[in-house]
Amino acid sequence: MRLKGNCIIGQSGGPTAVINASLYGIINEATKNSNIHKIYGARNGILGVLKEDFIDMTQIGSHIIEKMRLTPASALGTCRFKLKDERDNKQQYERIFEVFSANNVRYFFYIGGNDSMDTVNKIDRYAKKIGYPLSIIGVPKTIDNDLAGTDHCPGFGSAAKYIITSIIEAMYDCKSYAEDTILIVEVMGRDAGWLAAASGLIKDYEDFGPDLIYLPEAAFSYEKFINDVKDLCSKKKDILIVVAEGIKDSTGKYIASEDTSDFDGFKHKALGGAGQVLKSVLENEVTKRIKVINLGLLQRCSMHMASLVDFNEAQLVGEAAVKYAVKGESGKMVGIKRLSNSPYSVEPCITPVDKVANHIKRLPTQWINESKNNIKDDCLKYFRPLVQGYVPYPNVYGIPQYTDITNESQNYNKKKEVI
Amino acid sequence: MRLKGNCIIGQSGGPTAVINASLYGIINEATKNSNIHKIYGARNGILGVLKEDFIDMTQIGSHIIEKMRLTPASALGTCRFKLKDERDNKQQYERIFEVFSANNVRYFFYIGGNDSMDTVNKIDRYAKKIGYPLSIIGVPKTIDNDLAGTDHCPGFGSAAKYIITSIIEAMYDCKSYAEDTILIVEVMGRDAGWLAAASGLIKDYEDFGPDLIYLPEAAFSYEKFINDVKDLCSKKKDILIVVAEGIKDSTGKYIASEDTSDFDGFKHKALGGAGQVLKSVLENEVTKRIKVINLGLLQRCSMHMASLVDFNEAQLVGEAAVKYAVKGESGKMVGIKRLSNSPYSVEPCITPVDKVANHIKRLPTQWINESKNNIKDDCLKYFRPLVQGYVPYPNVYGIPQYTDITNESQNYNKKKEVI
Repeated sequence: MRLKGNCIIGQSGGPTAVINASLYGIINEATKNSNIHKIYGARNGILGVLKEDFIDMTQIGSHIIEKMRLTPASALGTCRFKLKDERDNKQQYERIFEVFSANNVRYFFYIGGNDSMDTVNKIDRYAKKIGYPLSIIGVPKTIDNDLAGTDHCPGFGSAAKYIITSIIEAMYDCKSYAEDTILIVEVMGRDAGWLAAASGLIKDYEDFGPDLIYLPEAAFSYEKFINDVKDLCSKKKDILIVVAEGIKDSTGKYIASEDTSDFDGFKHKALGGAGQVLKSVLENEVTKRIKVINLGLLQRCSMHMASLVDFNEAQLVGEAAVKYAVKGESGKMVGIKRLSNSPYSVEPCITPVDKVANHIKRLPTQWINESKNNIKDDCLKYFRPLVQGYVPYPNVYGIPQYTDITNESQNYNKKKEVI
Repeated sequence: MRLKGNCIIGQSGGPTAVINASLYGIINEATKNSNIHKIYGARNGILGVLKEDFIDMTQIGSHIIEKMRLTPASALGTCRFKLKDERDNKQQYERIFEVFSANNVRYFFYIGGNDSMDTVNKIDRYAKKIGYPLSIIGVPKTIDNDLAGTDHCPGFGSAAKYIITSIIEAMYDCKSYAEDTILIVEVMGRDAGWLAAASGLIKDYEDFGPDLIYLPEAAFSYEKFINDVKDLCSKKKDILIVVAEGIKDSTGKYIASEDTSDFDGFKHKALGGAGQVLKSVLENEVTKRIKVINLGLLQRCSMHMASLVDFNEAQLVGEAAVKYAVKGESGKMVGIKRLSNSPYSVEPCITPVDKVANHIKRLPTQWINESKNNIKDDCLKYFRPLVQGYVPYPNVYGIPQYTDITNESQNYNKKKEVI
């Protein structure tokens, strides 16, 4: 049975450069489908549903929507808000479905990572339990690339491209000095080393690449690290080390110093400082100068360095989510299935969301070298297509000019308190 | 009298995205001039002269030279090496002129900042003293934009453009959260606030701009800072603060914490951490979340975000240096004279290098607002043209692929020890 009614779209978790391409894909496909009438954007994800704080996307001019597609970071606003279990806060669920019912909502699309898929899962189960006719589909988004149910995640390729570009340019800076340099670059990756591993692609483009890559998937040994660096120091002028923020020692303790960490709303440890710790470890061991770069939040929002492949796929999964939903699917996450590497081709796929929610897909062990300090070259074929192509971001004389739809739109605003 | 003979080019000080466009300009113009025969690149600036460590630029294929022009950071290598006064190390000067004489050098072009212009000045004076026929011209280069004798410095516009772009994208990330955010961005600028001030251009492109800009030219008051931020907190959801690394309090003490500082080869204090200090000052005063970004060395080497205006001017000053030199000028720095803002036009000019060496051109006081926490809008017309246009950097599917001429060239290598 095909549902007819309105749809709500939400964005959740850390933003990416291309998360609005997924939003655009959903709007684009929903607009074409006669079963879907109004298209609401929930401000700040599920919080916007609880507050009934919506933007009527059909009221926004198409030129704004086109520009929004090319604007980094969640255009609807994001949140890090995890729904409690039904038994712990039934009121939250009742409120969500009260809002759905009042707005004749039959479709809900939620763009996010593994925590966001938990929200999809819980709402889907509750809808089925109370017999509310709803099709709810998760749309993957994370620069961390750690979601099950998809070959790779929209957002990842653009972040990897930004990291690769930044490291290449930073290494040219370091190499130009007469002094020997160790450049340590810390990249995001709390539990999975996909971004750090992707920096291995640098040697596709340049005469250098990371000499050492440290990943959360391999226990870090201070002693081996010092020996590895000393060994490299005797062979090379400049050394490049890429480290994921979430590396741990053999006891599972984070290398990043406790002082620099705090907590985000999902109760994950917010990491930082692994690069600085590695520097301090080396300072009494080597004579080369040591530079540390932490790419910080720029790696997840740099539309100016977005990958065209990633951008197009972000839109593709958004469109596919609507196509699956109107066929009656619910409680699923749409994903990307890789058909071939050369020529690179993909198609959308779909997975039960309970196989994705709260799971972390780690870098395969067989992609890590025996010394646990770099990746194996044969995994580069996985990364290679994902970072390619250039997205023509909106700009004026070469400087970005993005759009904030919350300024541009007429807000469909009936704010109430969160329960 | 026109000199005939060989020329040496050197690069010195912190690299920029466009320093090789100046190198290209010199090579391009020198190649066309019949008075100049061989063109040598000194590796690592004046160190390469002392070591007689040269690259014969005429031996490098033109396709490599073209790619070098679009490669960030000093292609010849750089140094932070200040010549002593002649009375303190006469041997250094004798060695330099021994190398000049052995290689029939009549032209020396030195691309760098105020410390490098000191080198130009000293070598020029020594040449005149001993009657050695030499034309030595300084070519300005610094992202700091703090050189006298030129309207602005090649390298500055590209760094400003990178900073503006990065801040815009980071603000979209911050704005997308439901939580109120204070974003503090620390930019380079040890003694002069040109880069921090240029971030004022953001409001040309977006609905926001820096709410507060802190500059080395205005004494920083913790008390006023806290009051300014509290005042803004009562009015706005998200607040953007841009701070130059070199801000000082009213006693002249750097705000950046001592712990994070060390020294570079020119005996300047290497600063970092002003942004972190501002964050720690606010932590007990405001409830908004506070994010700090330190753009680090990426702001001086990001060719992928270089300004076309800056790139073209970097080449222009290189070409002009050769034109002035073959007319018999020496002991001068070539500069940029601004003829008009609209349409923007410039022409090369020339200044005695002793008016530039060791001087710091600071941001004009009248460009700073009365509260000393932002710039006045009317100075934006100075910055506006400098960041414009896009440089088509060499790339493969959107990822840079630069060139290292020291790998490509046949090294004209007769290494000797530095005296």
